[in-house]
Amino acid sequence: MTSDRESRLSYARHWAGNSPYYRHMGFAVDSLDEGRARLKLFAGMDLLNADGILHGGVLPSLADAAMGSALRTLVGDAAQLLTVESNLRYLRPVAGEGGSATVVADGRVVRAGGHVAVVEVDLTDGEGQLVARGGGTFMLRAEDRS
Amino acid sequence: MTSDRESRLSYARHWAGNSPYYRHMGFAVDSLDEGRARLKLFAGMDLLNADGILHGGVLPSLADAAMGSALRTLVGDAAQLLTVESNLRYLRPVAGEGGSATVVADGRVVRAGGHVAVVEVDLTDGEGQLVARGGGTFMLRAEDRS
Amino acid sequence: MTSDRESRLSYARHWAGNSPYYRHMGFAVDSLDEGRARLKLFAGMDLLNADGILHGGVLPSLADAAMGSALRTLVGDAAQLLTVESNLRYLRPVAGEGGSATVVADGRVVRAGGHVAVVEVDLTDGEGQLVARGGGTFMLRAEDRS
Amino acid sequence: MTSDRESRLSYARHWAGNSPYYRHMGFAVDSLDEGRARLKLFAGMDLLNADGILHGGVLPSLADAAMGSALRTLVGDAAQLLTVESNLRYLRPVAGEGGSATVVADGRVVRAGGHVAVVEVDLTDGEGQLVARGGGTFMLRAEDRS
Repeated sequence: MTSDRESRLSYARHWAGNSPYYRHMGFAVDSLDEGRARLKLFAGMDLLNADGILHGGVLPSLADAAMGSALRTLVGDAAQLLTVESNLRYLRPVAGEGGSATVVADGRVVRAGGHVAVVEVDLTDGEGQLVARGGGTFMLRAEDRS
Repeated sequence: MTSDRESRLSYARHWAGNSPYYRHMGFAVDSLDEGRARLKLFAGMDLLNADGILHGGVLPSLADAAMGSALRTLVGDAAQLLTVESNLRYLRPVAGEGGSATVVADGRVVRAGGHVAVVEVDLTDGEGQLVARGGGTFMLRAEDRS
Repeated sequence: MTSDRESRLSYARHWAGNSPYYRHMGFAVDSLDEGRARLKLFAGMDLLNADGILHGGVLPSLADAAMGSALRTLVGDAAQLLTVESNLRYLRPVAGEGGSATVVADGRVVRAGGHVAVVEVDLTDGEGQLVARGGGTFMLRAEDRS
Repeated sequence: MTSDRESRLSYARHWAGNSPYYRHMGFAVDSLDEGRARLKLFAGMDLLNADGILHGGVLPSLADAAMGSALRTLVGDAAQLLTVESNLRYLRPVAGEGGSATVVADGRVVRAGGHVAVVEVDLTDGEGQLVARGGGTFMLRAEDRS
């Protein structure tokens, strides 16, 4: 495991910044700390449904990214992270105002063991209202760097 | 509820075809039947992770779309569908071969009541291997068409 | 809905106290407040597994009871509560020390609408360590009292 | 891992038969096969709720036992099984007829790797109606038998 805090946070930021998927979806890292990551999504028309609300599938995707980033701050480059399972409960639909919507995802690591970690996530809309909550289990697979 | 089978399937196909989110993600309807929907995703570089495997967040997003489409075949234009909750278990990572990956999602309605429905989904890769399974609860909110 | 706070708390306590299932399992109400319930379980040999740790199935059962009681404090006698779905993540096995184990379950309502509510729960062991976390969706079905 | 099929099935049956928790709850093994277990519960008054329907917490408990037993048929005595997470969707309330109710739980292993397994479960009532479906992730911890 990367030895110091700064290296791990730096690696987590680098990882997110180089993810084609983050760019494709418009996920941006807002802040990172040990075991925590806040991502922001400014969703345009592309992510809306045919009836103008954010497609239900965007939220678990953003949730997964926020949880992965939160875990990455603890793991650094020492392991590949694989999602084992995740769930999400939707509390309110996210309305697209004027063709766009903002969602903030706060991921936090609840418990990280040597091989398995549990992470949770809150999703809030542009007005700070909680729109969804969930969690996931992740597996840490040691990178072979020989 | 739309009175006949053909109208409902036609509406479900129309709905998916007009979803900006489906287009953005590359989700295409492969087949629809009553209570069932098969979507296909040809994922390019955009949906891969920094290490070349499909981003974990793509699968719950595709799963949600397949479940929503399966339910749409039963509901037609009679109700708005809201995801109440969903979960997914990941069985195998989906490797991007040569910068792309194919995933097929089979959604099927397990039980649809007047207000709430339970739907499940299987995700398989280009070689027909099961890569993830999950399900969700959806709420049907009657459209006010007055 | 029962009009005042005291009546609802009193009804929630009465409900739990009269549940044959609570008695069978040894679930006792420790405290109740609006949207919150703390249950305690003193688990004897009956609830242990063949290898001396608490059977994995006890925790979701206690979790469901704590979530139901938390919701009951808001609903009183106005509705029947039905579990729609629930999940639980296990963080640590609960070891039975000397043939018994203590588990505390804290249920809290995250959002209660007219028909559907989302509730979460923390389970801690006798030393205050978090052993599991989860949540659930519940449906409120109005009681016909005519 | 126990080398042959018969030994593993026999061990799984022995395990279930010696579980104090199975006895306490009234869970009985109906049939076992490789990767599959069917448990039956004849629930008396003890497991009912104050309003005469089966307490919601009984089902995830029975589900966990059926999934564990299904996995035990593959693992035999080679590993301790720990539930990592589980979920359940409830399709119909189980009414207690004349103060009792029957539930059958069919657990089946979807995928078993060296360290982690995914198992699913169907719960049906005495009339064969599906009342709940769910799944779980389990960890296999090698027993130290030195």
